[in-house]
Amino acid sequence: MTPQTPAGRFATAEIIAVGSEMLTPYKVDTNSLVVTARLDELGIQVRAKTVVGDDRGDLTAVFVQARARVDLLVLTGGLGPTADDLTREVVAAVLGRPLVEDLAILESIRRRFASRGLRMPDVNRKQALVPQGATPVPNPNGTAPGIWMDEGDRGVLLLPGPPRELEPMMERFAREVLAGRAGEARLHRRVLKITGRTESQVEELTLPIYSRWQHPDPPVATTILATPGQVELHLSARSRVAAAATERLAGCVAEVSAVLGADIFSADGRALEEVVGELLRERGLSIAVAESCTGGLITSRLTDVAGSSAYVRAGVVGYGNAAKIDLVGVPASLIDEHGAVSEPVALAMAEGAGARTGAAIGVGVTGIAGPGGATPEKPVGTVAVAVAGPQAARRVRTYRFPGGRALVKFQASQAALDQVRRAILESETKERGMRNEE
Amino acid sequence: MTPQTPAGRFATAEIIAVGSEMLTPYKVDTNSLVVTARLDELGIQVRAKTVVGDDRGDLTAVFVQARARVDLLVLTGGLGPTADDLTREVVAAVLGRPLVEDLAILESIRRRFASRGLRMPDVNRKQALVPQGATPVPNPNGTAPGIWMDEGDRGVLLLPGPPRELEPMMERFAREVLAGRAGEARLHRRVLKITGRTESQVEELTLPIYSRWQHPDPPVATTILATPGQVELHLSARSRVAAAATERLAGCVAEVSAVLGADIFSADGRALEEVVGELLRERGLSIAVAESCTGGLITSRLTDVAGSSAYVRAGVVGYGNAAKIDLVGVPASLIDEHGAVSEPVALAMAEGAGARTGAAIGVGVTGIAGPGGATPEKPVGTVAVAVAGPQAARRVRTYRFPGGRALVKFQASQAALDQVRRAILESETKERGMRNEE
Repeated sequence: MTPQTPAGRFATAEIIAVGSEMLTPYKVDTNSLVVTARLDELGIQVRAKTVVGDDRGDLTAVFVQARARVDLLVLTGGLGPTADDLTREVVAAVLGRPLVEDLAILESIRRRFASRGLRMPDVNRKQALVPQGATPVPNPNGTAPGIWMDEGDRGVLLLPGPPRELEPMMERFAREVLAGRAGEARLHRRVLKITGRTESQVEELTLPIYSRWQHPDPPVATTILATPGQVELHLSARSRVAAAATERLAGCVAEVSAVLGADIFSADGRALEEVVGELLRERGLSIAVAESCTGGLITSRLTDVAGSSAYVRAGVVGYGNAAKIDLVGVPASLIDEHGAVSEPVALAMAEGAGARTGAAIGVGVTGIAGPGGATPEKPVGTVAVAVAGPQAARRVRTYRFPGGRALVKFQASQAALDQVRRAILESETKERGMRNEE
Repeated sequence: MTPQTPAGRFATAEIIAVGSEMLTPYKVDTNSLVVTARLDELGIQVRAKTVVGDDRGDLTAVFVQARARVDLLVLTGGLGPTADDLTREVVAAVLGRPLVEDLAILESIRRRFASRGLRMPDVNRKQALVPQGATPVPNPNGTAPGIWMDEGDRGVLLLPGPPRELEPMMERFAREVLAGRAGEARLHRRVLKITGRTESQVEELTLPIYSRWQHPDPPVATTILATPGQVELHLSARSRVAAAATERLAGCVAEVSAVLGADIFSADGRALEEVVGELLRERGLSIAVAESCTGGLITSRLTDVAGSSAYVRAGVVGYGNAAKIDLVGVPASLIDEHGAVSEPVALAMAEGAGARTGAAIGVGVTGIAGPGGATPEKPVGTVAVAVAGPQAARRVRTYRFPGGRALVKFQASQAALDQVRRAILESETKERGMRNEE
């Protein structure tokens, strides 16, 4: 269902990424995610996106057909100076606009080279060509400007391929030009991130709730997305009145939260490491991690967050038994008795990490990432995760994760971060409980 | 230029990924990379790929138009049991093949549920429908089989969306069916991965070489791809005679190697952590890493490699000064004198990591990943990387990496792994030199 939009306003869009390298097994188009985010905010629906190589015939066919389907076309890539770069030529030919040299652009490209002490190579002259009547879109980070062709009920926007050039250009163009050409209805979105539940459990628990959201004012659309280690619930509402949509979505989030409780770790787009980081930072808690099968991934994810040096005390990766014994003081007898992959060893690692570094919370993870090291009782994917320390509820749990080495590592890191989160929340609940009893 | 292919053989393909979630700002289609890899090997050229939502009209339009352009269409996704899943219906309607229930499929879906002690829900019955005359493609990892429609000069393949279902299905189908329908010419590819050079340096050094490769027997196409921390040179040749292409590519690799030398770290697709792992394993060397700004990423990448427990002794993440002093024994006076981010501290970390764990090679990395912590002399992206130890040539170097926190972390991990690689190669060159002098 395409929303009703007044004449001269854009309701639908397609994105075409141009470049043969994106037709190899090695490279995906990610620019379209940035373009989609900006169009989404304006309520312009992306109906399809296409990747096409540096080939005049293919690009012409794809462009002509997409143009017949939607109001707005955004093409990325193919604006460079080489013979491969065909986007401006093909678009100009299809739209019947001859290419003309823009002297201001030519001059700014010359200046860009001059500022680095270079003469502009002749090939770059091509980047000053624009289809007649088109508007150049400034590019603060590169030589090729974008190109905007307004055709009344339709629009065509060309942007350069390098992400650091495209991103600020798209952001500014959406704000300054597209916002005035979109319909009044905007798309509002909330993303709930969930751990500890499978996709079908989330579906089962939330279907009776979200099936009631079809009714207007405004209707809320729901998508469930499963990725390794978490399930996402995407809620979106289209409305002319921002406050109405925001309020409606907040109501929906509250309904779902009542059912899923602490299994929802994020309702504002934050990743698990950011959520855990904020819990630690707000409470002035420090953390230390002793990792075996995750090989440093937990500490690396914790330190992906800006400002994490305030709470990450240390991380220790002890792959062999000797390292577990020496670096975090796991008793050798414990390993002999229970095996390196066991709950007692995970707990000893957590306690040792905390004790050796003076951190408030210690984490210990030991497991079998595969493909080697498995036994009949402990298959690949067996991972024990423990949390301990003066400021954390002591927790330990053994998981069996599916998938290969990389997937086991990631899921184990996700489980460890989630256990830290739950340990912090649980200690608080207990404290509150005790205070209430006093 | 489309290669000449006999009648009934497939020369060109397009891929259509079906699913509204891939039209959000959150999810890209990666299945097409797997499909492309298999088609590439058979010399079937992927000309374009499209993502389209769960919408009957959009999918019909995209399917009809792509079908007119190429010999083979591969559609992924939209084969599930829910009302959203429209691929089989749309394709059947366009091809004029009524959907018929396949009793063998129905039975196998029922058995799949029964094996987990469940009754097949009614909705799953839909997954047993196949367009008349189509061939089901077995799916060992899920309920929905793939569907293959052979139309003589054209073919349409439908595959389910979940990657762990799609990958083995595509691999087997390419081998067992498509191989017999592709032209005799196959695409052969070599990927050279390079560190220590910028994209334009690689271009400058190799252009005079690869520009001579246009001549036949067979011609070799070259693409340069820059990603953070490495530059890739992709060489490909299409030929009916595998040995001719392989030999020709080997010659090209040798020509480029003569110019780029040890800057090429991989000529067979391996990642840097695999190359370093193999150097260590082959020589019976062990490694220990002391990380600051990389936060565990180096150790995590080393342990991404299967079998790495044989050589990864330990990793230590010391984010603060105290951790650097306690965990790897960096003298406090060294930090006072030179600052935590300095070459002497990086070297002390490398030496401490080796000494504390008895590893043959120690790595030390200290730097400013940002956004905080910068000073005028040491801006964000300043990273000191050191390698030391009884079995490694002692090396230290300071880098200035561009980009935000994640990018600085990754580039620093790449530089550290590369320094380990070069240190090992250099010690050997020196040893050989000394032996020759004796």
